[in-house]
Amino acid sequence: MTLAPVLDQIDQDLDTATERLFDLLRIPSISTDPAYKEDCDKAADWLVKELSDLGFEASKRPTPGHPMVVAHGEGPDDAPHVLFYGHYDVQPVDPLELWDNPPFEPALEDTPKGKVLRGRGTSDDKGQLMTFVEACRAWLKVHGKLPVKVSFFFEGEEESGSPSLVPFMQENAAELKTDIALICDTGLFGEETPAIVTRLRGLLGEEITIHGPSKDLHSGMYGGISINPTRVLAKIIADLHDETGRIQVPHFYDDVAELPDDIKAQWDALGFDASQFLGEVGLSVPAGEQDRTPLEMIWSRPTCEVNGIEAGYTGDGFKTVLPAQATAKISFRLVSGQDPFAIRENFRTFVESRLPEDCTVTFKPHGASPAGEMVTSNPAFKAAQKALSDEWPRPAAFVGCGGSIPIAGHFKTILDMDAMLIGFGKDDDQLHSPNEKYDLECFHKGIRSWARVLAELA
Amino acid sequence: MTLAPVLDQIDQDLDTATERLFDLLRIPSISTDPAYKEDCDKAADWLVKELSDLGFEASKRPTPGHPMVVAHGEGPDDAPHVLFYGHYDVQPVDPLELWDNPPFEPALEDTPKGKVLRGRGTSDDKGQLMTFVEACRAWLKVHGKLPVKVSFFFEGEEESGSPSLVPFMQENAAELKTDIALICDTGLFGEETPAIVTRLRGLLGEEITIHGPSKDLHSGMYGGISINPTRVLAKIIADLHDETGRIQVPHFYDDVAELPDDIKAQWDALGFDASQFLGEVGLSVPAGEQDRTPLEMIWSRPTCEVNGIEAGYTGDGFKTVLPAQATAKISFRLVSGQDPFAIRENFRTFVESRLPEDCTVTFKPHGASPAGEMVTSNPAFKAAQKALSDEWPRPAAFVGCGGSIPIAGHFKTILDMDAMLIGFGKDDDQLHSPNEKYDLECFHKGIRSWARVLAELA
Repeated sequence: MTLAPVLDQIDQDLDTATERLFDLLRIPSISTDPAYKEDCDKAADWLVKELSDLGFEASKRPTPGHPMVVAHGEGPDDAPHVLFYGHYDVQPVDPLELWDNPPFEPALEDTPKGKVLRGRGTSDDKGQLMTFVEACRAWLKVHGKLPVKVSFFFEGEEESGSPSLVPFMQENAAELKTDIALICDTGLFGEETPAIVTRLRGLLGEEITIHGPSKDLHSGMYGGISINPTRVLAKIIADLHDETGRIQVPHFYDDVAELPDDIKAQWDALGFDASQFLGEVGLSVPAGEQDRTPLEMIWSRPTCEVNGIEAGYTGDGFKTVLPAQATAKISFRLVSGQDPFAIRENFRTFVESRLPEDCTVTFKPHGASPAGEMVTSNPAFKAAQKALSDEWPRPAAFVGCGGSIPIAGHFKTILDMDAMLIGFGKDDDQLHSPNEKYDLECFHKGIRSWARVLAELA
Repeated sequence: MTLAPVLDQIDQDLDTATERLFDLLRIPSISTDPAYKEDCDKAADWLVKELSDLGFEASKRPTPGHPMVVAHGEGPDDAPHVLFYGHYDVQPVDPLELWDNPPFEPALEDTPKGKVLRGRGTSDDKGQLMTFVEACRAWLKVHGKLPVKVSFFFEGEEESGSPSLVPFMQENAAELKTDIALICDTGLFGEETPAIVTRLRGLLGEEITIHGPSKDLHSGMYGGISINPTRVLAKIIADLHDETGRIQVPHFYDDVAELPDDIKAQWDALGFDASQFLGEVGLSVPAGEQDRTPLEMIWSRPTCEVNGIEAGYTGDGFKTVLPAQATAKISFRLVSGQDPFAIRENFRTFVESRLPEDCTVTFKPHGASPAGEMVTSNPAFKAAQKALSDEWPRPAAFVGCGGSIPIAGHFKTILDMDAMLIGFGKDDDQLHSPNEKYDLECFHKGIRSWARVLAELA
């Protein structure tokens, strides 16, 4: 089975592939809003029909929330079995008035930077998941079969916290377990470099509340003699980093490995433009650990951030209250080797050791997931790297991802499978924002990329 | 004109005086809530009628907000002229479910600590202002005239920021100017010591917002490389005090005088029980400047407090946002000698000098009023001190007040008059809270106190 005619087929079929994607995009499958429950169901049905028409054994699987879609196809006995994951639900569209076109009336638009598909879900994640479906379609059309065994696993709750995901994976572990998972929900590096994410940061969330007086006090009557929990909290937060940006929680870096030289060299070669990256959000200077490169700061170094803080009176005007308590939501992005539970304990001790007399603290945990680091010695990674490098102007890179993509961790912990995160989004895709788009070229080369990856995996 | 029959008259008339007060308390004159606008008007009318019936030339004066009540009486030509100030408006009553009785159905209650008048406004300030009205009534009933010339000035916006007060005082300066102002809106010291407030702290309010990225960022994508304004704000707040509780704004203490030895001795003799004061609000240790006594901390030393802070996501659950900005409301209680405007400038410089690259700050001023220190060499103070000492079990003290009572400052700055702040509230009166009360004994002895003060001033 040769690849060239498959790629030709993809090129010829691009217009109709776009039309098919538009059909899916027109379904407003906003998972977080109960008003769109039926639409989520409709999107699942649409995928089942699409995959069934291609010859997959596809079914919609009920959950307490929105349904899953699972499908299985045939493939050569000696070829690997891959499980492709994507999500058919989308983010809400507020504020609607900032959209230039209605979010669920997708359109092909000419822009100064080329043609784009515009609409909610184009990039996150309907456009991306359809790159893989279309790659399979081309293989099936040209050769009547796929070079590897393919299963699909689509979720409809990714944008609303995936409440049904882990139970479903646990209950259907035997069915979902394959040789490797493919996840298409990430982006290129820059404009032209295909990227395979091999490092994901973990996440530890903690809410801390410092309690002082038994009630809010008048700052005139009590100010000066009474402890102010807001000041105590501010001091704790100030103590979390030293002047160089290093986190001061004891033992925080004990299990953080230095980045291997080969990865560091690869990252240095990417030519990451920190000025541009920061410039787009109004900043100019990397503000993290001062002895680290910008890419290390976001991909391979742990962080500690305040995500929210609240105390006292925060409305209009002024109220001279001395607050009884002060709360902060603090999160740590973790890297490979760090144990979230040990860090939680050390953080709590760090906070408790800074409490002055008359103050107490309560902690509320908000998740603790370790970082993920893929075993890139798995030959699938080399195969995918070659396939992607063949398609794009620049060679594919193993990159990091500052965020946490829980599904990758679940494949590892629940199904003991590695996952390859390959996606074709761009930084300016406006994910979760008005006027979301996906470059037509990304859609097109994304389909071709998967066709190549399937060939290389075979 | 002798005092004794006046005091007898007060004792005999206590029940009907209580009934009169209850009439006023039944009017729900909540100034901050537009739904009670007519009730505020009604309370003003009630006072006009009451004072007119006593022979004062009383009138209701319109303002853009709630009306003022001004009244003038006759008096001996050679006696001083006093202006009595109080406010007829009250605080809202939420949460209503915490009241044991309806807040506007005043009642006389037996408690283990004695009889109390229960209801909104009993102590703040209707009960207190009526102590003076009833004292005048007794003088007029017994002697047909007052020993000094008395004018009244009642406000209906004290609990909602007094927006009309300064313009009204400026426009009616000639009419309101007398020899001295009497203000009845404060309390006893402890249970038995009558107090004349001679020091009021000033207040400087500043809202600061630290701006970083141009929008909220994802803490996965940007955490570690981007500046977090919440951390910058926390650091600034942490820097505001040193380990001993001393404020670090440059020149902050330059104009703060040491407390005179005689005042310090008087305060030491008061036997202030800091443990009890703090214990009532769940605290145990004075948390202010470590080289100061508890009374100094709240009466004669300046403070800096955070009254509110807010940034990022503060709702239920967790959101890994890196906030674009962080805001704090910060206030300074100032003491005599400190220039609020100089301190504002120094504070702003302090903040600006701590801004890292990529951060900016905006300031929003929320008032700047200097501290007040009464000229106690004015013979009226000695006269009042004697009168109060005659009535109560313990001699009257010149005390401080940690809070700011703006009206006292306005009398000084607009009308160039000293003010004597004499009141009969107790610490457990539940001002601004559910189940507000005023001890019947405080009401009774308050009336007798004013009758004595009028005699001494003559």
